[in-house]
Amino acid sequence: MNITMNHGAGGRVMHDFIQKSVVGHLGNDLLTRMDDAAVLDLPAGSRLALTTDSYVVHPLFFPGGDIGRLAVCGTVNDLSTAGADPLYLTLAFILEEGFPLADLDRILASIAATAREAGVRIVTGDTKVVERGKGDGIFINTAGVGAIPAGVDLSTHNARPGDVILVSGPMGNHEVALFAVREKLPFSTSIESDATPLNHLVQRLLATTPEIRAIKDPTRGGVASALWEICEHSGVAVTVDEESLPVDKEVRGVCELVGFDPLYLANEGKLVVVCGPEAEGPLLEVMGPGAARIATVYRGPAALTMETAIGGRRRLSMLESVQLPRIC
Amino acid sequence: MNITMNHGAGGRVMHDFIQKSVVGHLGNDLLTRMDDAAVLDLPAGSRLALTTDSYVVHPLFFPGGDIGRLAVCGTVNDLSTAGADPLYLTLAFILEEGFPLADLDRILASIAATAREAGVRIVTGDTKVVERGKGDGIFINTAGVGAIPAGVDLSTHNARPGDVILVSGPMGNHEVALFAVREKLPFSTSIESDATPLNHLVQRLLATTPEIRAIKDPTRGGVASALWEICEHSGVAVTVDEESLPVDKEVRGVCELVGFDPLYLANEGKLVVVCGPEAEGPLLEVMGPGAARIATVYRGPAALTMETAIGGRRRLSMLESVQLPRIC
Repeated sequence: MNITMNHGAGGRVMHDFIQKSVVGHLGNDLLTRMDDAAVLDLPAGSRLALTTDSYVVHPLFFPGGDIGRLAVCGTVNDLSTAGADPLYLTLAFILEEGFPLADLDRILASIAATAREAGVRIVTGDTKVVERGKGDGIFINTAGVGAIPAGVDLSTHNARPGDVILVSGPMGNHEVALFAVREKLPFSTSIESDATPLNHLVQRLLATTPEIRAIKDPTRGGVASALWEICEHSGVAVTVDEESLPVDKEVRGVCELVGFDPLYLANEGKLVVVCGPEAEGPLLEVMGPGAARIATVYRGPAALTMETAIGGRRRLSMLESVQLPRIC
Repeated sequence: MNITMNHGAGGRVMHDFIQKSVVGHLGNDLLTRMDDAAVLDLPAGSRLALTTDSYVVHPLFFPGGDIGRLAVCGTVNDLSTAGADPLYLTLAFILEEGFPLADLDRILASIAATAREAGVRIVTGDTKVVERGKGDGIFINTAGVGAIPAGVDLSTHNARPGDVILVSGPMGNHEVALFAVREKLPFSTSIESDATPLNHLVQRLLATTPEIRAIKDPTRGGVASALWEICEHSGVAVTVDEESLPVDKEVRGVCELVGFDPLYLANEGKLVVVCGPEAEGPLLEVMGPGAARIATVYRGPAALTMETAIGGRRRLSMLESVQLPRIC
């Protein structure tokens, strides 16, 4: 059974598909009402965090994840970086005519499992279908709403001189896992995407210390782009210590082979955390093995520099051109 | 200048595009912060309405609107039907490599103008690019957040026997305008889409009477599908009076020519309102000329029936197959 234009027409076929497949996997008291907008409560006194991402990853299924897991993790993680407790997600499909319903079912099951893992509910959605050749199987958009408790104020605008910057684990696994499966690299089948919802980790970090200024999830553009954004938004200089950068051995091997720089590779389950220097130890302990302090914040103007392993210094720029397209 | 894969890579090209084109058109103090999630305030004591839609309309520009206007109106209107005051929108693009930047700029200008008309702010977004042949120029997703004042409770689950059902103006203009431009019908160039943000009208209706039970915007599947949903959700029988149905003369002409049923045609600027019988007069007056009482609610079981102009009765079903694909 495959998707037809009628699955997006607003009539009986679409209605039955949503009732059986979507509600079957994702049903909760809010989604099941099926009004055009979900009506939600927010904890009193909290501010709202709102984010969105579309997912066009290729291939749809890859070691460590799939487009559905990514669509939940990416949006949950963007909310988490604002210090928000992710509560509600929207879910919108753009399906290509002919897409196998069995694949869609597998993706819906993954979305449901990942949402349970993160503790978020999918409360409203949309399905559109485009003609064969006008899409690429399935694109997903999720938007997310979270509640930011009073007193929490995380922003890439908040870094200040003297702060240190931590990363929660090795870099590049998501993008290299996609590269390996696309290129059918024979020796790297053990590299898996790190796609993970990070909200529980963020809540543990926030409970550890009030000295966290900013959290970023280094997705497209990698850790370097996250650091670059912190420099620019906060008007500070950041110096990276090359020797401290955590990279798994197999990921490093692929990078050396094909010329990828792990600092620019996408992650889907890692955090970059800016904090006061006294918070470094406690936060690294919560993050666990693999986490590392990778950089220090100095007075501006905004600049991103790396102290290299051989004792030199070089300027890091933004990602200039795509290493691998459609990684999320 | 056309979209390249680098516009979606998370590096310098994407950053410059967003700063110049997106922020240039849509900039406000919230969007300009450019954190991964926007941090927002909601009026104290209000509940939250959340909705999403993707837009894949073809062609991108049509009489009376374009994909950008549609992407704002559709989401604003879904929030409005919950009785919410629409406040914040997300905006996510899936662009096909090679898409002309001039067209994107025109769409962004339309989004900005429509957001101003509706009084909503675009506070966060996302840009993805897929390879040539894997998309269709541009797909847009918007999600929206609105605040529902205390005491407002609109839902298609709330209709009760004795209620009447109104429509705010003539049916089918959006879908027939798209059909006319796609088929290059020579005689119907004056038919325009009705794409309009309806939040201001909904606020005026809510200020008129507390006797409104439900509001629907009859988009895909048309007025018949909206009525069908009310029947099913509220467990009531609804009888439509065929003679009362408002349809513009030119729209009726196209329908007769090609066999479309206006009851199933998509609208993007109309409301279906369920209300107590005493509210009919005041609400029709606020809606203005073109509005009409089209149906009455009876005790269930759920059923949708039409009293035809020639005195018969027939059962109305859900839309069984698509009249025109990709209308929104």
